[in-house]
Amino acid sequence: MLAPVTTPRYVALAALVRDRIAGEQLAPHTLLPSERELGDAHGVSRMTARQALTLLEREGLVYRRPPRGTFVAEPRVRFHVGSFSEEADRQGRRPAARLLWAERQEPSPDTRRALGLAEGEEVHAFHRVRSMDGVPLALETTYFPADLTPGILDVGVEGSLWAVLRERYGVDPATSTAVLESIILDDVSQAHLGAGSATTGILLTRSTYDTAGRCIEHARDVYRADRASFEVTATVAPPD
Amino acid sequence: MLAPVTTPRYVALAALVRDRIAGEQLAPHTLLPSERELGDAHGVSRMTARQALTLLEREGLVYRRPPRGTFVAEPRVRFHVGSFSEEADRQGRRPAARLLWAERQEPSPDTRRALGLAEGEEVHAFHRVRSMDGVPLALETTYFPADLTPGILDVGVEGSLWAVLRERYGVDPATSTAVLESIILDDVSQAHLGAGSATTGILLTRSTYDTAGRCIEHARDVYRADRASFEVTATVAPPD
Repeated sequence: MLAPVTTPRYVALAALVRDRIAGEQLAPHTLLPSERELGDAHGVSRMTARQALTLLEREGLVYRRPPRGTFVAEPRVRFHVGSFSEEADRQGRRPAARLLWAERQEPSPDTRRALGLAEGEEVHAFHRVRSMDGVPLALETTYFPADLTPGILDVGVEGSLWAVLRERYGVDPATSTAVLESIILDDVSQAHLGAGSATTGILLTRSTYDTAGRCIEHARDVYRADRASFEVTATVAPPD
Repeated sequence: MLAPVTTPRYVALAALVRDRIAGEQLAPHTLLPSERELGDAHGVSRMTARQALTLLEREGLVYRRPPRGTFVAEPRVRFHVGSFSEEADRQGRRPAARLLWAERQEPSPDTRRALGLAEGEEVHAFHRVRSMDGVPLALETTYFPADLTPGILDVGVEGSLWAVLRERYGVDPATSTAVLESIILDDVSQAHLGAGSATTGILLTRSTYDTAGRCIEHARDVYRADRASFEVTATVAPPD
C-alpha cells in the first residue's frame, strides 16, 4: 500500500526547530527567527513557518510576545512517578511543601478501596503545594492509613512525606502505580499553582506499595501541565 | 504542626460524586441531581454543589447541557504505554488505523539520536489515525530504522505495526519508555481526531527496545485528552 501523501512541510519545519531547542542549542527565552526569516531559510512560505511555530506553541515549546516575536519556553521539569522531593534532589533542585490542610478523616470509598481499609478505619490526609526552586509545580492530596501513621499530623511536613514514612514509621515505599490524565485546573488550583493562562493540569491518581505489597499511600496529585512532564518505562506484555 | 484548615466542602462533595461515578453505579450520560438537589441532600449550599460539579467537569468526569443539567461523561479509555492495537484487544475493543502518510525519509536529529542511527541512515515513517470501536483516539507518527524494515511501506498497515515487526522482521518489542506531556491540539490534529471542544491532547514521545536493548521504534503519539488516560507502574528508586 502506498502512502497517500508525505510529511506536511510545517510538520517537518516544526521538527527541525524542536530539535534545535531540545538539543539545548537554544536557551529558554531566546528569540527565534521571525516567520519570514524562518520561511526564507527553509524555502517555505511565511504561512507554513507560522503553522510550524503555532504547532510548537501548542506543544508548550515556544511562546509568543507580539510584536516582539516568538521565544523559547522554559523546559518542563521531567518527573518520574514517585516522590516529588526525591525527584527534585536527583535534579539538584530545591523542593518545598506548603501545607494547605491536614486532618484525620473517614476515607472516601475510592481511597478506602485503594488502601484496602475496612469500614470504620480512618486516614490521615495532607493537602500541600509542592515547589521546586520556589516555583509551584504541583498540588498533592495524600492519604495514609491512620493506623500506620500515628501522630503524623503533629510532624512538620515541609519536606518528603516518604522520608517521614521511612524514618518515623519504618515503612519503605517500593512501587508506585498511577493513572495520568489531562484535566482543566479549577480556579482554586490555578490560584495555588500561580498558573495564569496555563489552565490545564496533569492529574495523577497514585498508589504506593511497600515491599510486602501493602498499599501505604493513596494520592491525587495535580501538576501544572505547562511545567511538568512524566517519564515512564513499561515492559511490553506479550500479544494475546 | 496543626493544619490551617480542613478539606473544603466542595472538594469533599466532589469526592463523593466521583466515587459514585467511578464505582460504575452511574452509567455514562446519566443525569445527575441538580445543584439544588445535591446541596439539599448533603447539607451544603447550592453554590458549594455548583463548585463540586465544576471541579468534576474540569476533570472530564461530567458534562453540562444547560438547561437540562449535568450528565456523567463517557469514561476515558485506560491505556498502558505500548501497542495501541494490543491494548484494544485486551479490552475487547476493535482497533483500527487510517494511514495519512508514509515514506522513507532522513530522520530528524532527535529521531536519529533516539534510534541510534549513523549519519546517512534513513527511517520509514508512518502517520496514522488510531481508533477504537470506530472512535478516533490518537494520532501516531512512527519511525523505524529503514535497514530493519525493508519493504514495510508496501505492507498494509491497518492494524498493529508491532505485529508486522514480529511476523515479518522477527523483531520483538520488549520494553518501552515514554515521556508524557499535556499539549494543545493543533487544528489539523483536532480535525483528524474529531475533537470539537476538546482541545487538549496527551503527547507521548516514545521509544521501543527489543530484547537486546536496541531501539527499534521512535514515535510521537497524540491522544485525545478527554478520551484517554495512561496507567503506569514505577519502581521506587532508593533515596540518595
